[in-house]
Amino acid sequence: MTADKPIEERTEFTPQFNEQGLIPVITQDAHTGQVLMFAWMNREALDETIKTRLGTYYSRSRKKLWKKGEQSGHIQKVKQILTDCDQDCIILEVEVDAGQCHVGYYSCFYRALKPGSQTELEFIAEKTYDPDATYGK
Amino acid sequence: MTADKPIEERTEFTPQFNEQGLIPVITQDAHTGQVLMFAWMNREALDETIKTRLGTYYSRSRKKLWKKGEQSGHIQKVKQILTDCDQDCIILEVEVDAGQCHVGYYSCFYRALKPGSQTELEFIAEKTYDPDATYGK
Repeated sequence: MTADKPIEERTEFTPQFNEQGLIPVITQDAHTGQVLMFAWMNREALDETIKTRLGTYYSRSRKKLWKKGEQSGHIQKVKQILTDCDQDCIILEVEVDAGQCHVGYYSCFYRALKPGSQTELEFIAEKTYDPDATYGK
Repeated sequence: MTADKPIEERTEFTPQFNEQGLIPVITQDAHTGQVLMFAWMNREALDETIKTRLGTYYSRSRKKLWKKGEQSGHIQKVKQILTDCDQDCIILEVEVDAGQCHVGYYSCFYRALKPGSQTELEFIAEKTYDPDATYGK
């Protein structure tokens, strides 16, 4: 037991949910390290993710659990779960298929700030699936 | 101009700060893709990061700007800035030196949930610098 140690040194997993009962989650491709998305979990979503090994989040807009891929089929197979020094953020390392982002890209992070610009983005990826075919128009 | 398009398709960088005026930031090693830390920026921290090309955040505990490395020397040279579909999260791709995490590790994410366990973490990294020598006891 290391519960008497500072949270940074503990081996007890004691995730720190915020005042809304949520913890931020970074989802990363287990093989390439590419960040795929950023979302939130509540305690139930985290427990479900650990139990099923499928990425499950809490939708703040719909105010309910959201199993990634339940509509699109683009599920996330969880290979490893990391936490940070303060245990107030989680990384899911996952295996995915063609797409993750609802816009049709592999990653939600498909735009970068143009070099030298403070206001203009450029697209740095190509779509990997057709979201209209997946979600309907 | 693409301002008439949905935010997912725009090339205008219009970061969506939350009700506290903050946006979540994932900081990633520009070369390996390893996630180093997770923190927050306000508008001023983001502008400062873009202008100086050095990772600058907003400390919610100290309620002020926080230039990473101002105390430890472990600065972050920003190589690229990404945003996601909804423009409510930012990735900083950075170059760093030996350490980033205040505990002495290269990344703040130095622990993973033990395979098969829901409650126990294991350390998956070694410290890369001595935090006591850097920050003092």
